[in-house]
Amino acid sequence: MHADRIFTNARLATMGPCTGSIDIVNNGMVATKAGRIIYAGPARVMTADEITDCGGRLVTPGLIDCHTHLAYAGHRAAEFEARLNGATYEEISRAGGGIAATVSATRAASPTALLVASKQRLQALINEGVTTVEIKSGYGLDEANEIKLLNVIRQLGAISKVDIAPTFLGAHSLPPEFKHDRQAFIHLLTETLIPKIASLKLADAVDGFCEAIAFTPDEIAEVFIAARAHGLLVKLHADQLSNLHGAALAARFNALSADHLEYTDTNGVAAMAHSGTVAVLLPGAFYTLRETQLPPIAALRAHGVRMAVATDLNPGTSPLTSLLMAMNMAATQFRLTVDECLLGVTRHAAAALGRQDVGVLAPGHKCHLAIWNVETPAELVYQIGFSPLHKRIWSAA
Amino acid sequence: MHADRIFTNARLATMGPCTGSIDIVNNGMVATKAGRIIYAGPARVMTADEITDCGGRLVTPGLIDCHTHLAYAGHRAAEFEARLNGATYEEISRAGGGIAATVSATRAASPTALLVASKQRLQALINEGVTTVEIKSGYGLDEANEIKLLNVIRQLGAISKVDIAPTFLGAHSLPPEFKHDRQAFIHLLTETLIPKIASLKLADAVDGFCEAIAFTPDEIAEVFIAARAHGLLVKLHADQLSNLHGAALAARFNALSADHLEYTDTNGVAAMAHSGTVAVLLPGAFYTLRETQLPPIAALRAHGVRMAVATDLNPGTSPLTSLLMAMNMAATQFRLTVDECLLGVTRHAAAALGRQDVGVLAPGHKCHLAIWNVETPAELVYQIGFSPLHKRIWSAA
Repeated sequence: MHADRIFTNARLATMGPCTGSIDIVNNGMVATKAGRIIYAGPARVMTADEITDCGGRLVTPGLIDCHTHLAYAGHRAAEFEARLNGATYEEISRAGGGIAATVSATRAASPTALLVASKQRLQALINEGVTTVEIKSGYGLDEANEIKLLNVIRQLGAISKVDIAPTFLGAHSLPPEFKHDRQAFIHLLTETLIPKIASLKLADAVDGFCEAIAFTPDEIAEVFIAARAHGLLVKLHADQLSNLHGAALAARFNALSADHLEYTDTNGVAAMAHSGTVAVLLPGAFYTLRETQLPPIAALRAHGVRMAVATDLNPGTSPLTSLLMAMNMAATQFRLTVDECLLGVTRHAAAALGRQDVGVLAPGHKCHLAIWNVETPAELVYQIGFSPLHKRIWSAA
Repeated sequence: MHADRIFTNARLATMGPCTGSIDIVNNGMVATKAGRIIYAGPARVMTADEITDCGGRLVTPGLIDCHTHLAYAGHRAAEFEARLNGATYEEISRAGGGIAATVSATRAASPTALLVASKQRLQALINEGVTTVEIKSGYGLDEANEIKLLNVIRQLGAISKVDIAPTFLGAHSLPPEFKHDRQAFIHLLTETLIPKIASLKLADAVDGFCEAIAFTPDEIAEVFIAARAHGLLVKLHADQLSNLHGAALAARFNALSADHLEYTDTNGVAAMAHSGTVAVLLPGAFYTLRETQLPPIAALRAHGVRMAVATDLNPGTSPLTSLLMAMNMAATQFRLTVDECLLGVTRHAAAALGRQDVGVLAPGHKCHLAIWNVETPAELVYQIGFSPLHKRIWSAA
């Protein structure tokens, strides 16, 4: 077997061959051909056009941030400050704050301005070894602006080497112009936007925010029915602030993932296990909102539900541009183990996106690698605010 | 008035002229001569050899991290992982973990190895606009190794542009060889190490860890008496895990600062107010230890005690190399306001180090500046894991 390139003298964390193990290979090697991995395992004799000595460093798959809202204009630092000075969420909302503030700023922004603002946040993720990023729309909330946002998301993929997974999150928040007609907005999503976005192939999946302050389970079900009818996968912001049985709803539609899950009960967990829905944990929002209700980690473990960890990067509840910090928060706050954190930003994050070709070092997968200046995986989770990334390798495939 | 250099078109946060205000000056200007500020305030006509247009950016004093233990060898990621996997602190301690593990690694390390390891942590702080850093010894715990460590700390200042404030923390932990003779160790500190370090001018201040797992108030008092007798200032790790009335003890010795303070009572706060002792808040340790007992912020405010914010960068309870993140944690966890956070890493951090010439943009101060790609101070505190630093300016003075 002759390879285009081999990476020798590496301590591999392959994240395979079976779920639940990060599978450390000391003195390991990765071989690639045309941007795809053809071998990952113990060192063996192989010829190659190019040989890279990893110097004994830890090598993981490029990291995957499977839940972000990083494409938006403006920021909400003034709201953050007002809350510290004693303003309530209600007062801020009455003053036009919250998601509505970001919707206004995003609608007013040109595609170029949106691209520039979003690019720097994406770059912060990339700087820490992230090679695949999910990005949701949901700050346009009308036809022109959701399409504008999804096009910007597509462009972010075109101007960087990162793999983008675009998600349509029309059911994010009821826009002000539909304040008195919820059903008309759902109708806009199901009859106009979902068909259009599906035909333009602007999104891989459809997401929704199921919560008292957003959309009801019945409204989400309408959106999901339309999504599935147009061949789109679904995922859900579920049970973050209260238990509306969002996890079970997501499972009923074979969702890729149900995300947040602080208030999910055992029935919801069992339903997710049955449907193979991934649990996406978002400790940055938990931290920022000073939540005390922990997601049901023990039940998720007991039922064998795969857990992913993501930044939830957004301007309100998680202005977090570090997936390494998200791992530390998942360990510190949720007591995820080091292996769970690492699987959560690789193999299980890929599953949350329905991707079969990233997140694991195995033949056939894209050769996205992160090479780290550390000896052990624990060091990636333990440090706070420090990126030990040595180098990223991007797949050409 | 002719300046060496002026910085125009800046939004200044001068952190003066009186405590409690960050003092924003729109369309501000800073003028310097021989590395010292000669003017900071509203734009005015002035000649200069060099003019730098700040493009309307926010300009603050270079940040000050006034409590770190960044000079050490090894790391404790394995302990972090063991705790996530269920090991108790006791089990880890019996296995040689905790501070003892870092003491062993630090004693075994060459000065060069220590310098290299410490330099990368210092660089991470510098990368976010930090220009003054306090560094404590305390992982040597015998004469040769404490001197070795303090020399490495001095060298860190010589090889970088950062101002280093070295602190002797002999009373950090009882070393294993004195396990059965606490008094002999205190005697070593007071009769040998403090006199020697004072005469070699290897430290500005003497620190101690007053806690059930470290040293008693009486032992700390002996150390402080020796420190004061040799002309050294004092500061204290006080009331972090229990109320041993460390804050009042620190105040009795006119300490520069009392640090941590989670369990400090109102009497302790009143004593600090009376002595002018700064309260150094360390939210990274609070976060990592999943503390729930909050420091007495309301009482500190009510008594007019100045509050500083620092990383507590150390390999066990706060492996945090980001002062911006420390500010975010102080706001999120302790509800410090944005202005309190910013004063906490500038003016009040300087006070915690007894420094009169940094931390404020005012005539006579060193011209250490941080120029930020943000419009408002709130953006520095609100973002998580993102450094909007545009440029550092180092004083030549």
